[in-house]
Amino acid sequence: MSPAPDEDRRWLDAAAAVSARGRPLSAPNPAVGCVIVRGGRVVARGWTQPGGRPHAEAMALAALGGDASGATVYVSLEPCAHASPRGPSCADLLVAARPARVVAGQQDPDPRTAGAGLARLRTAGIATDLVPSPACAAALAGFLLRITAGRPHVTLKLALTLDGAIALANGQSRWITGAQARAHCHAERARADAILVGGGTLRADAPRLDVRLPGLEPRSPQRWVLTRGQAPKGWNAVADIAAPQAFGSAQWLFVEGGAGAAAAFLKADLVDRLLLYRAPILVGSGLAAVADLGLETLDAAHGRWDRDRACQLGSDTLTIYHRRR
Amino acid sequence: MSPAPDEDRRWLDAAAAVSARGRPLSAPNPAVGCVIVRGGRVVARGWTQPGGRPHAEAMALAALGGDASGATVYVSLEPCAHASPRGPSCADLLVAARPARVVAGQQDPDPRTAGAGLARLRTAGIATDLVPSPACAAALAGFLLRITAGRPHVTLKLALTLDGAIALANGQSRWITGAQARAHCHAERARADAILVGGGTLRADAPRLDVRLPGLEPRSPQRWVLTRGQAPKGWNAVADIAAPQAFGSAQWLFVEGGAGAAAAFLKADLVDRLLLYRAPILVGSGLAAVADLGLETLDAAHGRWDRDRACQLGSDTLTIYHRRR
Ligand SMILES: NC(=O)c1ccc[n+]([C@@H]2O[C@H](COP(=O)([O-])OP(=O)(O)OC[C@H]3O[C@@H](n4cnc5c(N)ncnc54)[C@H](OP(=O)(O)O)[C@@H]3O)[C@@H](O)[C@H]2O)c1
Ligand SMILES: NC(=O)c1ccc[n+]([C@@H]2O[C@H](COP(=O)([O-])OP(=O)(O)OC[C@H]3O[C@@H](n4cnc5c(N)ncnc54)[C@H](OP(=O)(O)O)[C@@H]3O)[C@@H](O)[C@H]2O)c1
Repeated sequence: MSPAPDEDRRWLDAAAAVSARGRPLSAPNPAVGCVIVRGGRVVARGWTQPGGRPHAEAMALAALGGDASGATVYVSLEPCAHASPRGPSCADLLVAARPARVVAGQQDPDPRTAGAGLARLRTAGIATDLVPSPACAAALAGFLLRITAGRPHVTLKLALTLDGAIALANGQSRWITGAQARAHCHAERARADAILVGGGTLRADAPRLDVRLPGLEPRSPQRWVLTRGQAPKGWNAVADIAAPQAFGSAQWLFVEGGAGAAAAFLKADLVDRLLLYRAPILVGSGLAAVADLGLETLDAAHGRWDRDRACQLGSDTLTIYHRRR
Repeated sequence: MSPAPDEDRRWLDAAAAVSARGRPLSAPNPAVGCVIVRGGRVVARGWTQPGGRPHAEAMALAALGGDASGATVYVSLEPCAHASPRGPSCADLLVAARPARVVAGQQDPDPRTAGAGLARLRTAGIATDLVPSPACAAALAGFLLRITAGRPHVTLKLALTLDGAIALANGQSRWITGAQARAHCHAERARADAILVGGGTLRADAPRLDVRLPGLEPRSPQRWVLTRGQAPKGWNAVADIAAPQAFGSAQWLFVEGGAGAAAAFLKADLVDRLLLYRAPILVGSGLAAVADLGLETLDAAHGRWDRDRACQLGSDTLTIYHRRR
């Protein structure tokens, strides 16, 4: 008996939520999440480990001593079908564990798997379903874009005033937002594997761009500077952000401004998500958040951004938008 | 037996809500609200009528045939103590109606009353209380500022992009926000007795500034232009917004931009309320919402604005802030 699709979707949401624990340290592998359900209860969970192995399914199955009989395995991404020197394929592990059913929230776009993982299970007599899950797709967005578009998922973060300034005209930008918003931003950095500012910001602010949250310091992402010049020591330089593989194998790129960098990414239509930390202040004729985009009409600006959600962080408001694609 | 202060406050909230019906047509009088409660139920309501008479208390008492015995009269502003050629004072009307108790949410700052209204009732043996009510103070803000500061309450409305532009660099500003936000703005105009734009906006957009909502067209406020020049026919010109009585007897001034007018009011610290209609678009190097404020440090910008609330209007977000004073 198959459960209602709603129930599947709920367990896939859980698998997607669990996968967040692997982000971003799973790189270069996707951060996958797995929950194993028996009799309506979660009996095991797993997520991709640092460096990419063991995989989420291997972790969850290990917690059950390799025996998933009678259980349903929910996994945010189709189980891999390719063995590697670092371990057997998850499809083979699952066949051996004999679950009653395997449900994946997203097909693997990796040509080495691409349906072959679920097919292997089916051939072995295990019921399988692909139940497309928006939560799983979102949790894997960086990996999916890397495979399908050769680029990372890009978040553009801006800390701005009510009237859209990211700094005073004299360059002062510390601080627009308060301590809570800044801590939130550090937690967001910890979810990225690459972080970028424009050359102007590097010269003006010499930002450290590390994660200054207790316990998360090791998650500080690779630092990139958008410049036609050289990168200082400890930084990577990029001049052409639209070049294939411009950011190496990064899945999650966090762009922190300034106005020139924001405009470059927006013009190239490379921004997938906007994170706007807005302070309740008006400054008048400050540095506008986004430099020239070459826009001729307002019509051309509409229809691109969907509001996700908003929350208060002290007296600041964070609003998140997604690019409609 | 006096009811709990909480109960008083709740009925005063109701009186404040009822008073909104008189705004702004009660001018030059304050828009007052009155609810009469007997046995825990509202038995009559009244609000200041167009032109300022009859007063709220007179309307509510008339609905009871002038007999309020055993009832409590809640009124957003202390009853007036001064008879006028247009009718008796509300204090006298109330004495004649013999309510058990009268509760006012705000003392009348008008020197002709200023406590004398409640005193007259007390002398006549009616229990009276002044229970300061934030809702009543807010509903009367325009009247109170007119008496205490010689100026109207000022709302600054801006329709802007995520990056703080009120127009493209080429001047195009139609439309940033959608139909719902524009209708909301028209309803806000209907609550003002004066509306202002800067000379730049008048020349660029020739706005009508009327209320285009079915049934509310007669509420279209007086039109003002901030200019060092002349006003066109049908408009009033103002050059010095901080001059006493600059806006005649207006209680509620609605400022609709542009950037120069916004800056002028902000610099003079005359803005009491911000109404920000924000569209989910980025335009890059547009016309910034607020012209130069002469700000040297970010510190000087902080601590001025308290967020009231936010709501969605189609895909636009309205956020309201109040000046902390
Ligand atoms: N509030 C916030 O969230 C926030 C965040 C960051 C920065 N800021 C403020 O923003 C200001 C700096 O902003 P900004 O706009 O002047 O500078 P920016 O965006 O940080 O950097 C502009 C630089 O980026 C490079 N660049 C831009 N477009 C490019 C392209 N298409 N290809 C290659 N390189 C490109 C160029 O670097 P080169 O000149 O090196 O070639 C350019 O000078 C500072 O005041 C800073 O405090 C605020
Ligand atoms: N999206 C929106 O909500 C919105 C709203 C309104 C306007 N807009 C756009 O904003 C643009 C116009 O804005 P703007 O900043 O150029 O013009 P503006 O603010 O409408 O008007 C500026 C003018 O106001 C007068 N002024 C300013 N400060 C003054 C002071 N302290 N004392 C006396 N007079 C003063 C001067 O008028 P004189 O030159 O006549 O002396 C000045 O030229 C237009 O593109 C319009 O479409 C957008």
